[in-house]
Amino acid sequence: MDNTALPLIKLSEYFAKYPGIGLKTAKRLAYQTLSFDIDEVEMFAKALIEVKETIHFCPVCQTFTDLDLCKICTDAEIGKRNKQQICVVETPKDINAVERTAEYKGVYHVLHGLISPLEKITPEKIKIKELLTRVRDNDIIEVIMATNPTIEGDATALYIAKILKPIGLKVTRLAFGLPIGGILEQADEVTLFKALENRNEL
Amino acid sequence: MDNTALPLIKLSEYFAKYPGIGLKTAKRLAYQTLSFDIDEVEMFAKALIEVKETIHFCPVCQTFTDLDLCKICTDAEIGKRNKQQICVVETPKDINAVERTAEYKGVYHVLHGLISPLEKITPEKIKIKELLTRVRDNDIIEVIMATNPTIEGDATALYIAKILKPIGLKVTRLAFGLPIGGILEQADEVTLFKALENRNEL
Repeated sequence: MDNTALPLIKLSEYFAKYPGIGLKTAKRLAYQTLSFDIDEVEMFAKALIEVKETIHFCPVCQTFTDLDLCKICTDAEIGKRNKQQICVVETPKDINAVERTAEYKGVYHVLHGLISPLEKITPEKIKIKELLTRVRDNDIIEVIMATNPTIEGDATALYIAKILKPIGLKVTRLAFGLPIGGILEQADEVTLFKALENRNEL
Repeated sequence: MDNTALPLIKLSEYFAKYPGIGLKTAKRLAYQTLSFDIDEVEMFAKALIEVKETIHFCPVCQTFTDLDLCKICTDAEIGKRNKQQICVVETPKDINAVERTAEYKGVYHVLHGLISPLEKITPEKIKIKELLTRVRDNDIIEVIMATNPTIEGDATALYIAKILKPIGLKVTRLAFGLPIGGILEQADEVTLFKALENRNEL
């Protein structure tokens, strides 16, 4: 006989809907909820709904935002960032990864996915159309393809480059090679192959 | 610049309050929330609050329940289980572990912790008092100590046995030894020591 109280079972089923959370972890989380104050749980519940109600795509770069225009696009509007350089990424989180370098001063475009025939993700299913409109309607100089160095990431970068280059745009791709601080012996063969292929003259 | 929308940051902070969920996982969960329907998220939020509002200790066995009396204690009341045999466990989840054997037909008592001087958990901080009252007020024949085979589990079992035995109660402890299907060579030395110590005549 399962003696678990019904509200705990129901709650763990909701936790288990998140990819990567198994039934066991979900149950643990449901039990742990009991150890919080009711105020905390109420604020958590409110935060869940608030996320769904306020988050939408930034009309310019397509990242997630609760504002009319996301923070970076707002900065670009007031001249704090270079609107003529677009860095194309797969997810909103990738923006933060690039931002952490504190090097890039252009703007972004989030595709929300990569072209993948295997998973039936065609170009129409990701935000390529929005990128093309943006490039057409604005005075863009360079588009940097910063998708992951995977088959899908490469394919998506090539697909977009093939459309943008004939318009006369500079389309670049992030460099691939050995990670800084990495050990040559431990590098996988594909990374090492890329490092060899992209070798620079000293 | 962190371009993450504020509602997403707030939500991930609530996820990160759960022990075992780091900031990275919390952020992933916050983003994943966006992929659910608003109805699903609203029901999840409701389930969170419902757990806090409806779950309390069963007045008899101290497990978590949303009912006046938990399912197992209710079954005991109507004569479907043996009220004279109490299996003492650390957590409500342990009840389900014992129930899965489909062997035990007695009732339970949940301590909600184990005595641990290191963590300043004294006998008064767990539900031992409730167990003693229960044993005193009811006609109990046997108390089975099913706490974990750890220092704290053993200490708690011994502590309770020392109080109950003088009253004339039969106090037993789960047997420890090799797990069924286990390989002798892979058993740790403490388990093997216990298996030797508790050896049975063939």
